[in-house]
Amino acid sequence: MEKSEEIMNMRHTLSHVLAAAVLELYPTTKLGIGPAIDDGFYYDMDFGDEKITEKDLDRIEKKMRGIIKRGFKMEMSKKSREEALNWAIERKQDLKKELIEELPMKETISFYSMIDNNSEKVIFEDLCKGPHVESAKQIGAFKLTKVAGAYWRGDEKRQMLTRVYGVAFAEQSELDEYLKRQEEAKARDHRKLGKELDLYTFSDLVGAGLPMFTPRGTLMRDLLADYSLSLRKRAGFDRVWTPHITKLDLYKTSGHFAKFGDELFIVHSQVNGEEFALKPMNCPHHTQIFASKPRTYRDMPVRYMEPTTDYRDEKTGELGGLSRVRSLTQDDSHVFCRTSQIKEEIKNLVAIVQEFYTSMGMMKLRARLSYRSDEDKYLGDKKLWDMAQKEIRQAAIDNKLDFFEMEGEAAFYGPKIDFMAEDAIGREHQVATIQLDFVQPERFGLEFTNEKGEKERPVMIHHATLGSIERFMSVFIEHTAGWFPLWVAPEQIRVLTVNNKVDKYVKRISEELNEVVLEEPIKNNELRYTIDDSDDSLGKKIRRAVAMKIPVVLIVGEKDMASESVSVRLRDKEETIKLKDLKKYLKKIK
Amino acid sequence: MEKSEEIMNMRHTLSHVLAAAVLELYPTTKLGIGPAIDDGFYYDMDFGDEKITEKDLDRIEKKMRGIIKRGFKMEMSKKSREEALNWAIERKQDLKKELIEELPMKETISFYSMIDNNSEKVIFEDLCKGPHVESAKQIGAFKLTKVAGAYWRGDEKRQMLTRVYGVAFAEQSELDEYLKRQEEAKARDHRKLGKELDLYTFSDLVGAGLPMFTPRGTLMRDLLADYSLSLRKRAGFDRVWTPHITKLDLYKTSGHFAKFGDELFIVHSQVNGEEFALKPMNCPHHTQIFASKPRTYRDMPVRYMEPTTDYRDEKTGELGGLSRVRSLTQDDSHVFCRTSQIKEEIKNLVAIVQEFYTSMGMMKLRARLSYRSDEDKYLGDKKLWDMAQKEIRQAAIDNKLDFFEMEGEAAFYGPKIDFMAEDAIGREHQVATIQLDFVQPERFGLEFTNEKGEKERPVMIHHATLGSIERFMSVFIEHTAGWFPLWVAPEQIRVLTVNNKVDKYVKRISEELNEVVLEEPIKNNELRYTIDDSDDSLGKKIRRAVAMKIPVVLIVGEKDMASESVSVRLRDKEETIKLKDLKKYLKKIK
Repeated sequence: MEKSEEIMNMRHTLSHVLAAAVLELYPTTKLGIGPAIDDGFYYDMDFGDEKITEKDLDRIEKKMRGIIKRGFKMEMSKKSREEALNWAIERKQDLKKELIEELPMKETISFYSMIDNNSEKVIFEDLCKGPHVESAKQIGAFKLTKVAGAYWRGDEKRQMLTRVYGVAFAEQSELDEYLKRQEEAKARDHRKLGKELDLYTFSDLVGAGLPMFTPRGTLMRDLLADYSLSLRKRAGFDRVWTPHITKLDLYKTSGHFAKFGDELFIVHSQVNGEEFALKPMNCPHHTQIFASKPRTYRDMPVRYMEPTTDYRDEKTGELGGLSRVRSLTQDDSHVFCRTSQIKEEIKNLVAIVQEFYTSMGMMKLRARLSYRSDEDKYLGDKKLWDMAQKEIRQAAIDNKLDFFEMEGEAAFYGPKIDFMAEDAIGREHQVATIQLDFVQPERFGLEFTNEKGEKERPVMIHHATLGSIERFMSVFIEHTAGWFPLWVAPEQIRVLTVNNKVDKYVKRISEELNEVVLEEPIKNNELRYTIDDSDDSLGKKIRRAVAMKIPVVLIVGEKDMASESVSVRLRDKEETIKLKDLKKYLKKIK
Repeated sequence: MEKSEEIMNMRHTLSHVLAAAVLELYPTTKLGIGPAIDDGFYYDMDFGDEKITEKDLDRIEKKMRGIIKRGFKMEMSKKSREEALNWAIERKQDLKKELIEELPMKETISFYSMIDNNSEKVIFEDLCKGPHVESAKQIGAFKLTKVAGAYWRGDEKRQMLTRVYGVAFAEQSELDEYLKRQEEAKARDHRKLGKELDLYTFSDLVGAGLPMFTPRGTLMRDLLADYSLSLRKRAGFDRVWTPHITKLDLYKTSGHFAKFGDELFIVHSQVNGEEFALKPMNCPHHTQIFASKPRTYRDMPVRYMEPTTDYRDEKTGELGGLSRVRSLTQDDSHVFCRTSQIKEEIKNLVAIVQEFYTSMGMMKLRARLSYRSDEDKYLGDKKLWDMAQKEIRQAAIDNKLDFFEMEGEAAFYGPKIDFMAEDAIGREHQVATIQLDFVQPERFGLEFTNEKGEKERPVMIHHATLGSIERFMSVFIEHTAGWFPLWVAPEQIRVLTVNNKVDKYVKRISEELNEVVLEEPIKNNELRYTIDDSDDSLGKKIRRAVAMKIPVVLIVGEKDMASESVSVRLRDKEETIKLKDLKKYLKKIK
């Protein structure tokens, strides 16, 4: 048996132990289902009038540990459908009854019993396909973690059950490690930090999944996008601008409508009944700019980029913070090039991705190459696909990417490379993408004149470095835990005065700060600073600055003034810097 | 009689002369209506199977001049409804008959006859209320200008008539001047230049009124917006970001829904049937950012700006080039301030408007102050309105604006100052706006804590400097005739080689150009240049550069190389500049 299977069995058994403990404590509880999951297990239960909260978990957990300590073995048995129904009816387990009723008439139904090692009595029996571990001895380290609501059978028209979650691992050290990481992730939660650091906000009047960015959040958005686009500008990309709506004809031509037509946000004109779609992607719009004038081989490659907001109709239940939004701003771009230019263009894009994520402190990148499968959801000539997939694979090898391959994960128009970046606490996030497309140029009839005066069809390469700015921000906030690198911190420096005797000296400091312009990783990045010269105590001012995770705090007292210096407080150290060295010092901070 | 009335009478008479001439040439023509208009007159006519084009205008005009030369007087007469109907039936003038039939039963109907001075015969008689000039002698200078289609009675379900336009003025010199200005306006037409200079494009697949901006046009958009926003940044405005859609609740709360609900683009979710609106303005979104955290008097004023695209459902027939679009990007901003801060904030905004338009070469600004009328379309307390209108008026006086006042033109939430700027050929365009708003803060329950710890309501000041970027671009393209000032020209410099012997020298020139950064009116504006080292003749290269209205053309031949200089060709002069002086020289060009 594989180790991972054994752990999943153990987690599954723990869900039974959980149910057994709950029935001992709350005998009228009705049980739903209790599966093993990625990091542990849960059980959905109807506690009736009893209101279970996280405060009750200790008590339940204690009961579970008692059961495990006494020891048990797990035994499978079979019942006929009638026996099974009687079993459920006798125990007043209505939810189990419902499950049994839905099984085929003649099915023999599998049950698992937990049998006490000493008394040989059945402690707990459950309708269950298994598998499980054989005995309590195989159970490793676990912990009940939280209580949540869950609709019975995931149907919002059915009753709300209580889902009790636990986490479980083979070894205590693994569990500890996991819980520590969870704790860390919680402290880094971008929804929490987004609010604390005043980066974005939601309004019930505007709607779920539609974040609005405050001045601080907007600065970050713009700086991140500027950096991402500046790398492409260097590689010959030009900015273009397209509207957020379009006639459906555009997507009918591109092929998107047939694939995703029923997922589009439809825009309706009350004036004349015309219908438009809110754009969920930008490639079709960009083809229309390419097609707006005749092109020759001398113009190729033509490279467009556009930071623009797309709209995707996610279900309300799936929306949360910036990870999944309805308004996603992509740092999108499209290369129109000759087949012979694909290699070089991909190389440039890979280099951009590597440069960007390295400078973000996320240098560990993995690449997933996605190919077509034999399903008929893919458009375009199979031969072109084979060629494109070969190009993609060769590019991965040539650029020494750490890659793996997946069939059936391609876009409908072509194969792609998706990049996964690892964050500071070891989680992997899907970020950049490079996609090859022979289909849209065909469908839009794009062409240029080659050296022989003949019409030739370009290839399209789709690319986004950040992906969606909103999603990248959610990753970046958690990656940095809100301690942003100096260049991108909305408020980079806060000057705190000890008292108002230093006001004049603070003016001199401001003059120095006004002259600091950071040039890495983006140029002309003028310093953003504020001065806290309120009447509050220095302690209070420092606490406020730390709470906002200001990367550089300059504390100015009479001693500093007398010595023509400032006390600098960074996240991890404090030092005193001469005023005349301040500019140079700040330019070196990362 | 006022001079202007006299001219309108003369234009009206000319429409009769036009009809008379047409009937002589095409006797079966059915006449519609023929009024005087701003610059002349027109007559709508049904020519039956005859197809009239602008080529026929000469012939008709000649006939008109003949009638005028022979001389006539205009005489009014009255007919009963029956007489009038008979008159129309006899002449087979069905359209006139329809007009007469709609007049009240007992009405005596007025007609005008044109009577030949020599023969005393009626040359032409028309159903007409007048007024007219008395005789042909009072007719000044005129010219037939164009032919267009027009639905009978403006109803697209009725037949299409042919509208013949003429222009007319008292003096030939005025007519000449007018035609010259028209000619000039035509040469400056931003739709023509937009295409020639490759600034933007439309696609039938995307839809009318939804321009897409090419790399050149996008550069201009971004530079203009950057400049406009940079002035506000200096005045303490922070950028924010809001999505393009919102639940309707936002506009129900703001009051917009009750006013303009049926003009909104409605966005429909196919996933769960939710309804949103595409935002046609940004103020309600910005209130939600203001409301996202508690504010105190120390935070005031709070100033947000956002260059963002709004969507307005204009009728397809009204769309044209960039003047009227469905996707309009506003350089929008909102100040939330205390009543005591209004004066200072408006002063700052007026200064921004003046600085912006002065540097655009449109220094002649007029201001229209728009107040409420007694209609009930205005929201909010009348007392607050009175106060706001006083503020607006005082601001106009304090800031020495050239202003006039209009009742009934205010926004539903408050009075406003709209600015009109005069372009290079004397046309006035509505541009910036400053609007005072006591209503939305009330409706959204906005507040801040004042010095006494009490809740106080802020005032909102809406402002856009450019207005809509698209519309401003249409004005600016025509104002400059496409000869953009250096800082904002998409391609600022083109280097033309005489032959390939200068390639090395061109590299040295590039190195110089790479170091040029313009700092006015926006900072960090790196030079944008291209090199035309194709095999084409120099003449062809120059023609190409001039056609694209490149502000600075550098011509590089062997002589230039030998003398370490470049031949500079500006729009209005040519000169030779030493390579070592080139950077300094370029920085001085406006």
